[in-house]
Amino acid sequence: MVSEERILLSHGDGGQRMADLIAEVFVSRLGPSDPPGDDAAQLEAAGRLAFTTDAFVVDPIFFPGGDIGKLAVCGTVNDLATTGAVPIALSASFVLEEGLLISDLERIVDSMAATAAEAGVRVITGDTKVVPRGKADKVYVSTTGIGRIAEGVALSGANARPGEVVLLSGAVGDHGLAVLSRREGLEFASEIVSDCAPLAGMVQALLAAAPGVHVLRDPTRGGLASALNEIARQSEVTIEVDETAVPVHAGVAAACELLGLDPLYAANEGKMIALVSPEQAEAALVALRGHPLGLEAAMIGKVESGASRVLLRTALGSHRILDRHVGEQMPRIC
Amino acid sequence: MVSEERILLSHGDGGQRMADLIAEVFVSRLGPSDPPGDDAAQLEAAGRLAFTTDAFVVDPIFFPGGDIGKLAVCGTVNDLATTGAVPIALSASFVLEEGLLISDLERIVDSMAATAAEAGVRVITGDTKVVPRGKADKVYVSTTGIGRIAEGVALSGANARPGEVVLLSGAVGDHGLAVLSRREGLEFASEIVSDCAPLAGMVQALLAAAPGVHVLRDPTRGGLASALNEIARQSEVTIEVDETAVPVHAGVAAACELLGLDPLYAANEGKMIALVSPEQAEAALVALRGHPLGLEAAMIGKVESGASRVLLRTALGSHRILDRHVGEQMPRIC
Repeated sequence: MVSEERILLSHGDGGQRMADLIAEVFVSRLGPSDPPGDDAAQLEAAGRLAFTTDAFVVDPIFFPGGDIGKLAVCGTVNDLATTGAVPIALSASFVLEEGLLISDLERIVDSMAATAAEAGVRVITGDTKVVPRGKADKVYVSTTGIGRIAEGVALSGANARPGEVVLLSGAVGDHGLAVLSRREGLEFASEIVSDCAPLAGMVQALLAAAPGVHVLRDPTRGGLASALNEIARQSEVTIEVDETAVPVHAGVAAACELLGLDPLYAANEGKMIALVSPEQAEAALVALRGHPLGLEAAMIGKVESGASRVLLRTALGSHRILDRHVGEQMPRIC
Repeated sequence: MVSEERILLSHGDGGQRMADLIAEVFVSRLGPSDPPGDDAAQLEAAGRLAFTTDAFVVDPIFFPGGDIGKLAVCGTVNDLATTGAVPIALSASFVLEEGLLISDLERIVDSMAATAAEAGVRVITGDTKVVPRGKADKVYVSTTGIGRIAEGVALSGANARPGEVVLLSGAVGDHGLAVLSRREGLEFASEIVSDCAPLAGMVQALLAAAPGVHVLRDPTRGGLASALNEIARQSEVTIEVDETAVPVHAGVAAACELLGLDPLYAANEGKMIALVSPEQAEAALVALRGHPLGLEAAMIGKVESGASRVLLRTALGSHRILDRHVGEQMPRIC
């Protein structure tokens, strides 16, 4: 039985304490691995699979709108979703700092379980290590996901073609500013809440309505600007974005103004960029707006032939290059 | 271009420095993801898959016989191998401490690439985060693997049956003592070298020779004693081990004696326990000994009906219970 209040080194040593921690904190919330107790889970699969991993080191581990557990599930589910995949299994590995409150860990694992259920998937295998006090910051989580890609779906950042329309499923910057504000103890008139959400369902609705979607990407670390730059490079196209068309919540805009940050580079954890053929752009937009996580979806730009770059058409009608940034803008937001 | 000597926070921020690090340190050694540049890799699969994850926080990151990169690949390949699976894809996520020498990271990634090649698999997707100095210890790695389980193979720790023979593929304790000795700056007459190795090939040879193998488990953290305890509990059997039959290298035995440690609880990273029907025990042993990683394989015990526990028959002929240990024996050995 886990009678300790805080994580000890012996919770990670392969002995009795570790067995108790796994049973009471992890298995009781996430369900058993399959087969229970084995070192590897087993599953049946057929066809084309997506496979992706992310480490999460967000500081603080609890923030408005989420926590590191919710984030770890959303981040991996959403990376799977960029291939059009439906998630079928997740794994989670934890690095715990000695002294972590077990009640905090329980809250995080509760959150993972709830978010995974929302995404229709389960964490079926995992691992836990403990490092001495001062060798980590409370808890780091790595999640890995397997997803099933339906026949005929072939999405990639390399698929953008001139003429396509760029859609964005909602406002940018909420996650990055929510984490940063909480970490720095900043208070704004209205609290900024992370957009952290699993997008598998929204993506399936989008692809059903608009099979002409050729590229999906979630603009996380580095924000919208970095994600569009990646697509422009992979596809060797120019992407033109209309600054006035990009939704930004008033609170995020005000906080960015105050802190000297650009919301186009701020992280999101519940948004998707979609590039779609012009004939299906309207249908795709309707599908996004018809989903609770895409209510504020907008057409924000278009793909053009030309050098691999992102051009921003400003409110004044001029153009500037929206490049990859150099030098950290916001560390540890995911 | 990566012109820095050490990891900066901006190597993890989604911008240009991170893109350069990924291209020059990771992709150049591990190969591109497939499709290149996307957030999730894609692969074809059919049938029964194994899926497993592990976090690696070993201290020091370089030790006699291996490093954290080699360990991270072996650990996951070997967990897949416990299901009889052949590895088909790995992912790797890194938590880097600001200030880590990039040359150290390159050495680690070189080692991952070489070990993955030895195991016949590739790291096809990954992620990198950077935390401020003092919020990690140089580098932590989480690897996750997918493996293919051949038709008819159904291994689990729950499959042990009375009458079966317990085989061990070689000597115990080398990894744990190698890491501990290096960490504590201890010198022994002969250097103790980690047994860290990917066992997928050895396991395939074993299963081909002895399809009557019902349980495989790699005795890592917590050592042989903990792994056997897990099997005894999962299968609700008694496992009797003959102390004199368990191979222990002289250097490990001497170091354990000196440090007051029990080699039966010391970690291994290149050993496999196999439980096999008595009719096939000899064939299984020959198969193990015929593989370069199983030269010192031995029959170490047998499965009996009775309470879920492990009994050690000592050199003096008496019996004692080999229980799960409580309280850390060796932190951060994997």
